[in-house]
Amino acid sequence: MKLAFVLYPDMTALDLVGPYEVLTQWPGSEAVFVASTPGDVTADSGLPLRATHGLDEVSDPDVVVVGGSSRTEVALEDEALIGWLAEVQPKWLTSVCTGSGLLAKAGRLDGVRAATHWAWRERLAELGAIPVAERVVFEPPVVTAAGVSAGIDMALALTARELGDDVAKAIQLGIEYDPDPPFDAGSPEKAGPDLTNLLRQLMAASEATA
Amino acid sequence: MKLAFVLYPDMTALDLVGPYEVLTQWPGSEAVFVASTPGDVTADSGLPLRATHGLDEVSDPDVVVVGGSSRTEVALEDEALIGWLAEVQPKWLTSVCTGSGLLAKAGRLDGVRAATHWAWRERLAELGAIPVAERVVFEPPVVTAAGVSAGIDMALALTARELGDDVAKAIQLGIEYDPDPPFDAGSPEKAGPDLTNLLRQLMAASEATA
Repeated sequence: MKLAFVLYPDMTALDLVGPYEVLTQWPGSEAVFVASTPGDVTADSGLPLRATHGLDEVSDPDVVVVGGSSRTEVALEDEALIGWLAEVQPKWLTSVCTGSGLLAKAGRLDGVRAATHWAWRERLAELGAIPVAERVVFEPPVVTAAGVSAGIDMALALTARELGDDVAKAIQLGIEYDPDPPFDAGSPEKAGPDLTNLLRQLMAASEATA
Repeated sequence: MKLAFVLYPDMTALDLVGPYEVLTQWPGSEAVFVASTPGDVTADSGLPLRATHGLDEVSDPDVVVVGGSSRTEVALEDEALIGWLAEVQPKWLTSVCTGSGLLAKAGRLDGVRAATHWAWRERLAELGAIPVAERVVFEPPVVTAAGVSAGIDMALALTARELGDDVAKAIQLGIEYDPDPPFDAGSPEKAGPDLTNLLRQLMAASEATA
C-alpha cells in the first residue's frame, strides 16, 4: 500500500501524525510526504516538516491523508493542492479536522456526509458537504474524521476495515492507545457553552490573522 | 515559557507531536526543536522533520519533551543528547514512551517512579528507574508518560498543573480530544496475552534490526 500524507503550510501536525503513526504500521506499506512544492513545510504551531515529493510525482497512492489547519481558508486557495485532490483516485481518500474542507473544495464531498472539526461544520456545509457530528464517517472511498486527535480513531477504524480487527488491535496496543484524558471536555456538549464560545472566538481570531 | 522538543534519528513522531499540539497552545509559549545536530531528522516510520537548533544553543528551556523510539538502544548511545539531558534544568522535564529511558540513562530517574511503554518496563528498571504501570507519572520536575499516544494525556495533565483546569479543558476542546477508539485494546491487560506476546516479538525484532 502506498500512503500519501499531504503537507501544506500551516497545517496542524497532529492531524497528520496521528494517522501516520497508525497507517505506517501496515505490513508492506510505503509512505510519501507530498506537497505542492517539495521541501520545508512549517506546521501551524511551528513544527518543521519536509515534503519528500511534489504532487506531480505522486499519481497513484492507495491511501491519501489530508489534515486540517487553523488557517484553512488560506489552504483552500492552494489551487495546485485542490486540483490534485480533485483528480487523485486512491482506494481511500481520508481527511482529519478541517481537511474535509479541502476535499469539499475539490468537489469530493458534494452532498456527502462528512466529519470535520466541531467549530467548522457550518463552513463545511457552505462547501457542499453534509457535516455530521460524528467522530469518523465512512463514505467510500472517502473517510473523514472530526477535529485533530480524531485522526487516530479514523486510522484505526480504517485499519480494521482494510486489514481486519486483529491488526487494528495490535497497532492500537503498539501505540498504547488507552486514552485517559484528565477531563471530559473533548466535545462542545461535554465542555459546555462557555468554553465552546471562548474557543470559537479564539479560532476565528486565528483564521482572521492568517 | 520556552518549550524544547527534542528530535533524534528514528524517534517516534507521535510521542512528540501529541504534547507539541497541546503545549504550543500555552499563551506566550515559544517552541524550539532541538537535536544533537540541527537540520534534517527522520522519524522511525519515515516522517521527515527538521531540528531548528542544536543542543548547545538551548540552555534554559522551561519545558523539555523527550519522545521515545522503536530503536531506543541506538538513542541511548547518543552521548551528546544524554549529556544535555543530564545537565538541563527546566521547570518540567518530560518524556513519552521510551523517552523515559533516555532520562534514566542521563541519571534523571535513579530510584524515581516513572512511566514508559508497557513493553519496556523491565529495560527501564535496568536503567535505574522504578517503572510503574501508570499513564502519567508526576515526580517534579520530571513527568513521564506511557507509550506513544499517552503524551497527549501527559501534556493536558501538565497544562492543568501549570495553567489550571480551564486552560487544559479549552485546549482539549480545541484538539477535539474526545477519544473513541474502535476497540478496547490499548493496554496488555485489555488486549490479552496473545496479542501482547505478538507485539513483544515484533518490537524486539524492530530493536534488533536497528
